Order: sequence, then structure tokens, then C-alpha cells
Amino acid sequence: MPRSHGSDIDKLIQLLAKLPGLGPRSARRSALQMLKKKDSVMVPLATALNDVAARVQICERCGNVDTHNPCHVCEDTRRDQTTLCVVEEVADLWALDRSETYKGLYHVLGGTLSALDGVGPDDLNVAGLINRAAGEGVVEVILALNATVDGQTTSHYLAERLADSGVRVTALAHGVPVGGELDYLDDGTLAAALRARSLV
Amino acid sequence: MPRSHGSDIDKLIQLLAKLPGLGPRSARRSALQMLKKKDSVMVPLATALNDVAARVQICERCGNVDTHNPCHVCEDTRRDQTTLCVVEEVADLWALDRSETYKGLYHVLGGTLSALDGVGPDDLNVAGLINRAAGEGVVEVILALNATVDGQTTSHYLAERLADSGVRVTALAHGVPVGGELDYLDDGTLAAALRARSLV
Repeated sequence: MPRSHGSDIDKLIQLLAKLPGLGPRSARRSALQMLKKKDSVMVPLATALNDVAARVQICERCGNVDTHNPCHVCEDTRRDQTTLCVVEEVADLWALDRSETYKGLYHVLGGTLSALDGVGPDDLNVAGLINRAAGEGVVEVILALNATVDGQTTSHYLAERLADSGVRVTALAHGVPVGGELDYLDDGTLAAALRARSLV
Repeated sequence: MPRSHGSDIDKLIQLLAKLPGLGPRSARRSALQMLKKKDSVMVPLATALNDVAARVQICERCGNVDTHNPCHVCEDTRRDQTTLCVVEEVADLWALDRSETYKGLYHVLGGTLSALDGVGPDDLNVAGLINRAAGEGVVEVILALNATVDGQTTSHYLAERLADSGVRVTALAHGVPVGGELDYLDDGTLAAALRARSLV
């Protein structure tokens, strides 16, 4: 390999290339941009990474990732404490919360049941969900798992487990995505949208 | 804005989103991945950023960015010391060096002449180039500027300035990119490739 820069810059590029969305080329571009903007980008980023790394925790109530424990969502008393929204991953929690239509609490499962990958109920935070649904004055559990085979299997399993708890168990609606064109949608989505049609 | 995570995580995401190739979405994904892989990605990246930021310098001979000064290229005595390759930016230096076909030294101009943006010869490292071409036993200067209008204008200007120095001034060949399809090439490239045709 030619050496047009030092091995420490090489190491930085290799670390950047591990981030999702950054390949080797954009990792090099990022590194160069930071080398040029040392004080406005590079040093603040290093500081932010250190700050967050030192304090990041998994919220013991909902499974969110935050620098607080309980996390900002669980601590927010303005939120509806009677509704739990069950998601697969923290990314889903953040995505739902960005939409600003849901104002309740969350529960991060940590994945889906998967016979293929050997993921059973004990590998997910199912016990925590059952406990929370039973104990915290929860009225409704919204299952917001992905519309994949594994996600839907897990939804059915959770609905069964929650059946005795007395809470209302609901799931996200299936249908045509807003802005979606019928011609590009799969048959399953079209069938679901037709079945769930409503009066205008 | 909803608060599903702390403001320090928000700040980290905003800093990541400034990197080229990372939008807000992939910055969030990157942050989340790092939060999950704290010890294998987040802490090493923070350390690498701090290490490099503390020692990054502009090579006073060629303008390369490195943690050494003179940089690794200028210090490498196995390189052909009689050839200078003139590039616009450090990224071009790195790109040429990755191709492993050029084994000489470089000179980073820092941009191109541009009447529109008010960039004159004094804003670029032209004086340094003239000095190096005159003084260091240089035999050939290869102009490797971009094939843009500004790049070519700058090439012509540099060729004139270097005319009296006695060094051989050459430029990269124009032609069909390797793997390129004629049908998708512009007329200028096709005309240049035709003019510069060679016997097979």
C-alpha cells in the first residue's frame, strides 16, 4: 500500500468506514473534511463521542438507549402513562417518536422471535413487557412490530401472552403508505388495504 | 420536538450529520450503532479523532495533510524526487497515490484559479510550485488538475509560468475512461479520445 498519509489517519478512516452509510470512499472524504475543519468538526465530534460513551445506558424500564436511566421518554410525566407501544428496536422507538403522533410510553423488545436464528421469548424482553402490562396501570398495548413474517409471528405470540392481563392489545394498521402508488405495491398490502377499507 | 433521547445524543447526531455522505437518517443509524457497540466503535473512534486532531498538520513542502511534517510522501526517499505531480486538492493526491502508478512527489495547489470566485494565483500555492520546480532538481512537472474549465485554465496558466524554468511540463491524457461506454460519453471526451488515438 502506498503511504500518502500516516497510519493514524488510516486508522481513523477505517473506523469511520464501519459506520452504516459510510463506505471507504466517503470515510476518506469525511476524514479529509474533518482534517480541514479540525476545530469546528473534528474536536467537537471527539468530545461528543467521549461524553456520550461515558454515560450511555439502556433504560431499565423500556429498553431505550439514553444517557439517562430511566430514559427521557419514561421520565416524561406529560406522556400518557396508560399506553405502551411495543417496538423491535430502539431505532423504531426514535422513528415513531419523531412522527409526533404517539404520546405514550414504549417497550423495546430487542428483536423478534425467529426459529431460524434460534431467538426465543427468553432472548427478548418479553417478561418485562408482561410485568409492565400487569402492574403499571396500563390500559392499552400497541404492537408496532415490523410487517415482516418474524414481526407478525412475534405480534401474534405477544397478543396471546397478553390475553390474560386484561389490557387492550392493538396493532398498527396495514394499508397503502401515504404517497404510495398502487402500481408499485405488493399484493399483500393491496389486499390488506382493501379489507380495511373505510367510509369516506 | 419530542425527546426520546438526551440532548447530548442529539448533539452527536447533528455532528455526524455534517460528515459528507451522512444525512440525518444515516447519522441517526450511525449514532445508534455506536451506542450499541460502545467499546468496539465509539470509544476507539473518539480516541482516533483526538489523536489525529492533536497532530494534524499541513506539509510545508507539498501541502498534503498528515500527522507528520514533512508528510509521509515527501519523507519517502524511495520516491522519484525529480517528478512533481500538481493536484488541486489533498483528496486528489490520495486518489492518485491509491492507483499506485505514480511514484514521484506531489504539490497541492489548494484549488483552481477562478475569476468568478475571485481566486487568483496568490490564493493558491503557485509560488511554492515555481520555487520547487526551480530549486529541487526537478525534471518533470505533471499537471493533474481536474478536466473542468477552471482546472484547464489553471493548467494553461501554470504551464506558462513554468515555461522559463527548464522543466518538462506534461498533463494527464484525455480519453475514454477504462470501462466507459462510448454511448454515455460527452462529445468533448470523444473528440479528445479521437485526436489522441494511438496505434494498436
